[in-house]
Amino acid sequence: MDFELRYRSLRRTIDDYLAGCLVEQDPRSLYGPMKYVLAGGGKRIRPVLLMVACEVAGGRSEAAVHAGAAIEILHNFTLVHDDIMDNAPSRRGRRTVHTKWDNNVAILSGDALLALAYRVLLRTDSARLKDITKIFTEGVLEVCEGQAYDKDFELRRRVSLEEYLLMIQKKTGRMVTVSTEIGGIIGGASDGELDALRRFGDLIGQAFQIQDDLLDIVGDEKKFGKTIGGDIREGKKTFLLLEAMGHARGKDRELLMEVVAKRGIRKSSIPRIRSIYQSTGAIDAAIKRVRENIEEAKHQLHRLRSSESTLMLHWFSDMLLNRKF
Amino acid sequence: MDFELRYRSLRRTIDDYLAGCLVEQDPRSLYGPMKYVLAGGGKRIRPVLLMVACEVAGGRSEAAVHAGAAIEILHNFTLVHDDIMDNAPSRRGRRTVHTKWDNNVAILSGDALLALAYRVLLRTDSARLKDITKIFTEGVLEVCEGQAYDKDFELRRRVSLEEYLLMIQKKTGRMVTVSTEIGGIIGGASDGELDALRRFGDLIGQAFQIQDDLLDIVGDEKKFGKTIGGDIREGKKTFLLLEAMGHARGKDRELLMEVVAKRGIRKSSIPRIRSIYQSTGAIDAAIKRVRENIEEAKHQLHRLRSSESTLMLHWFSDMLLNRKF
Repeated sequence: MDFELRYRSLRRTIDDYLAGCLVEQDPRSLYGPMKYVLAGGGKRIRPVLLMVACEVAGGRSEAAVHAGAAIEILHNFTLVHDDIMDNAPSRRGRRTVHTKWDNNVAILSGDALLALAYRVLLRTDSARLKDITKIFTEGVLEVCEGQAYDKDFELRRRVSLEEYLLMIQKKTGRMVTVSTEIGGIIGGASDGELDALRRFGDLIGQAFQIQDDLLDIVGDEKKFGKTIGGDIREGKKTFLLLEAMGHARGKDRELLMEVVAKRGIRKSSIPRIRSIYQSTGAIDAAIKRVRENIEEAKHQLHRLRSSESTLMLHWFSDMLLNRKF
Repeated sequence: MDFELRYRSLRRTIDDYLAGCLVEQDPRSLYGPMKYVLAGGGKRIRPVLLMVACEVAGGRSEAAVHAGAAIEILHNFTLVHDDIMDNAPSRRGRRTVHTKWDNNVAILSGDALLALAYRVLLRTDSARLKDITKIFTEGVLEVCEGQAYDKDFELRRRVSLEEYLLMIQKKTGRMVTVSTEIGGIIGGASDGELDALRRFGDLIGQAFQIQDDLLDIVGDEKKFGKTIGGDIREGKKTFLLLEAMGHARGKDRELLMEVVAKRGIRKSSIPRIRSIYQSTGAIDAAIKRVRENIEEAKHQLHRLRSSESTLMLHWFSDMLLNRKF
């Protein structure tokens, strides 16, 4: 199977679904921004994982398309609200909702996206819909917890690497795990298979976020769609910063403390920070962590029945490891 | 049956449930505000209606307590986000979340309240849980639509009474209807009974909002918990203002146009506006509309089996008609 082609096909399925799932027109101040958000593209990683996980368990991906779309809508709801909280002017090369419209519109259309996610999820034809809806709901709460920690950490001088990992597990990882778990349930996975899918999701989710932190420093600006060094400029406590803080000494350490204390630093300091990340081994540690996670994630896949879809999860893991975007 | 006593008892059941339904402690920046909101009291009209509707259909109110709490949590979620959008400093005599904390905390804890509402709803033991969750979800979307219209209308010069009634039907009425409908379903209502409960909810919901508009002008500030004339000061397009605009002439009309154009007016003008509302018959029209709705709502109750619980809905309707708070 050409996995790249299969991925694109599934992604298009989700794009098409999202383009068609809002038929309401009025009030335009509500449905206009919602449609704008859902048409914004993105990698659609969560729904693709959900649909492939369904196949892995023996189901058809078509059975999982509603749940996949629901996860993607949910993800977009969090982006709309997070972007308000983070004062982010743009995302994926387009203006954020609160910038294009205003905060009120972004709050309200975000709320409605969350409700839309439930509407779409409830279209799923499964005897275990109640379990699915519960998992989905607990995921929403955990994402909120993760975002709360993230905002808390911005105001704190000291954050441990363990705290950071807990935060990203909730904010980013949980929804990946929810995706593989719900996909597995729809596909009829056994308890053992569900456990493997959950662990796979956990590991991939964490790797994904650490890779994101890495790409902020070593990525290709054009492919990544974000300004390189943006995390440093904003003083974000990433895996790299926290890891480097644990090892830097002397003037290097002072500079990193300054990034934290002043919650950001001027653009001209980015190369020096990058070299500190290199010399302290933070970049290597991040690369190592991502690689180990991906290896362990692929190891979990051995517990699943072997099929083209299971191989696709292998491919997907490697793609995350090698992604430049 | 002493209906007043019964109402208080059901209200306490909900208060207790809400006080106990959040056991999480961390992150405090998330769960602190959520607990604060749920401990804020309120009339708990929706959950009480939901539980009584369940009894009317032949069920036990205990079976409906999860769904009742869910509706109340959902209602509180809308208040937290609406208060941000409306720049409201206080509610029920307490500071609003975005005032006591900040906008970000209010956005996020509101989001988490919506998820909590689903968590609690999903505890309902009913073979029709999927239908219940769907009705709930469609209700959330409609409330968002209502709020979007409400914000749109603030910016418009002209709003018809019909548009206003559609807006309040979505923003306020829908959740009352959702309450009576879900209560009926949990109680095992027939299709005919469900239809009667829905219509009852629609009529009560609309009456409730128009009564709210009235109380802003003729209410007792202490009992109402809001500043009398607040709607006028903010230039809110209420039933009274729109009705009076349709009948006022000359200088009276000019003053009302000024309220709309300037989106508010100084406090000293409130008595004059009130007398315009009186002379144009707007107050009488509002009273008449509330009374007719309540009569029609009670008429719908004849379609239900007669019981103490059905009588309680009668009593509840009259209480809404006569409320001063």
